Amino acid sequence: MYTLYYAPGACSLASHITLEEAGVGYCPVRVDFSRSEQRGEDYRAINSKARVPSLVTPRGILTETPAILAFLAQSHPDAGLAPLDDSFEFASMQAFNSYLCSTVHVAHAHRGRAARWTDDPQVIEALAVKVPANMTECFALIEATMLRGPWVMGEDYTVADPYLFTVTRWLERDGLSVDRFPGVRDHRDRMLRRPATRTVLEREGGGA
Amino acid sequence: MYTLYYAPGACSLASHITLEEAGVGYCPVRVDFSRSEQRGEDYRAINSKARVPSLVTPRGILTETPAILAFLAQSHPDAGLAPLDDSFEFASMQAFNSYLCSTVHVAHAHRGRAARWTDDPQVIEALAVKVPANMTECFALIEATMLRGPWVMGEDYTVADPYLFTVTRWLERDGLSVDRFPGVRDHRDRMLRRPATRTVLEREGGGA
Repeated sequence: MYTLYYAPGACSLASHITLEEAGVGYCPVRVDFSRSEQRGEDYRAINSKARVPSLVTPRGILTETPAILAFLAQSHPDAGLAPLDDSFEFASMQAFNSYLCSTVHVAHAHRGRAARWTDDPQVIEALAVKVPANMTECFALIEATMLRGPWVMGEDYTVADPYLFTVTRWLERDGLSVDRFPGVRDHRDRMLRRPATRTVLEREGGGA
Repeated sequence: MYTLYYAPGACSLASHITLEEAGVGYCPVRVDFSRSEQRGEDYRAINSKARVPSLVTPRGILTETPAILAFLAQSHPDAGLAPLDDSFEFASMQAFNSYLCSTVHVAHAHRGRAARWTDDPQVIEALAVKVPANMTECFALIEATMLRGPWVMGEDYTVADPYLFTVTRWLERDGLSVDRFPGVRDHRDRMLRRPATRTVLEREGGGA
């Protein structure tokens, strides 16, 4: 039914887990960043932005994590992956996802992907310095004002949860411990107990 | 019915125009960035992220442009501001909005808001260098692969249009001419002919 193009541990992990949670048929296709496959002609024909995730659907191709997550929730309402009947709650969930893509993901990307914003090797190196402070600020805000608990939106699991889980895994790459954020740590542990999460992590090869 | 907190010319312009297009009652409240009002205690009680836009609704406060835009379209279906009955088209529109917030807005912000990612004045200065190239790349991609024309989604105006219009206005601030992108220029000109756009630009004081 779907084909998902993903890279292990990238933000595509959120869409990958959501497909598994939705219980729909899909074919996962790994894009090898170590060989720069995402910049190759074949992949650019699928996603001209040269990024993951890309979701091939019977209607066409979708990109951008928040859009794919909302699409899967809307297309498979029986899976109960979003508050579809309440536009304010749906918007609150989307605001959370939008914060992750526009602020938290960007904060993290300044270590590792800084070449997006400068060609100067010294500036690239300098941009890593503030990443731990920015990620700390983001997660402090998530913990204090966004994560209702136990799930992002409260009692009900939604597509915001695999997305938070994905970004939480980047904390440790940035030299921070999730132990500083007990609510986020509890959320991560709950995510790790779900069969869909375990299936997908095993497939992605544990790449954090 | 609503209160919108905005700053002239900021990304809140998209939500501001959308409220006007929806024809609903709202109170626009200007946040004075020149006096750092967004970081003051009063505004942080509304939006702990210290950013605009914030939309106060009868149910609570919403933030993040893509979430607010989808919310207004869903809450006022008679205004016809999104393909609400087609989850694939709705997702395509959301993918466009997500690209604007996570990639184009971020590319632009490296001139003017670079202090988000470094405290070093020399690095801040260095980050302005690549902004024109990155904005050019973004708009070339929008022109070639995203903007269906005449509106973002084709024949029908949606909430993606005031968002593209908002970001297009930033091009010139970054030293680029919209004339390099004829489809985008045509889109901007169409936007400027809409009464809602004119009303809001007049209120925001033409701050580009």
